Amino acid sequence: MLKAIIFITLKESVLDPQGVAVKNSLHTMGYQTVADVRIGKRLEVVLDTMDLQKAEEDIRIMCEKLLSNPVMENFTFEIEEVDESAICSSNLSGI
Amino acid sequence: MLKAIIFITLKESVLDPQGVAVKNSLHTMGYQTVADVRIGKRLEVVLDTMDLQKAEEDIRIMCEKLLSNPVMENFTFEIEEVDESAICSSNLSGI
Repeated sequence: MLKAIIFITLKESVLDPQGVAVKNSLHTMGYQTVADVRIGKRLEVVLDTMDLQKAEEDIRIMCEKLLSNPVMENFTFEIEEVDESAICSSNLSGI
Repeated sequence: MLKAIIFITLKESVLDPQGVAVKNSLHTMGYQTVADVRIGKRLEVVLDTMDLQKAEEDIRIMCEKLLSNPVMENFTFEIEEVDESAICSSNLSGI
């Protein structure tokens, strides 16, 4: 199996109100050195295939069509092999 | 300046309904090989300091007290040096 780790971040020119709120909270907590906070997403997508090239193409299209908003966000991803048994044991632990 | 990249992920034993919804959407789009989706956060926190040790301590406490929910989530982070001018130019571009 392959696991894609996908990072979705707001483009630099886009204001991040959630990040501003977190920055203000950190200032209130006493962390005055915090200069900027930006909040993005990290997704793990496990694919039941070993075809790396096809997986890269698929993940790119998934990001463009569903996972990210190309107008406001950038995405990057990396794909690694994972041990099938490790995934099954965490997903199917109730069976 | 230092930039902390923080990853916040749900613990393995915690159900991820948002991830399940995305997995179902990907299946509907025709990507039947998608076996699992887990969604977490990626935060960038810029600190106006060069004291790496203090920054590590601060970021750890920020994660424990504000940025993550220790009951349901794990966090990891890495800290890197960043060029001050690059940060100022993106933050203060309107001035």
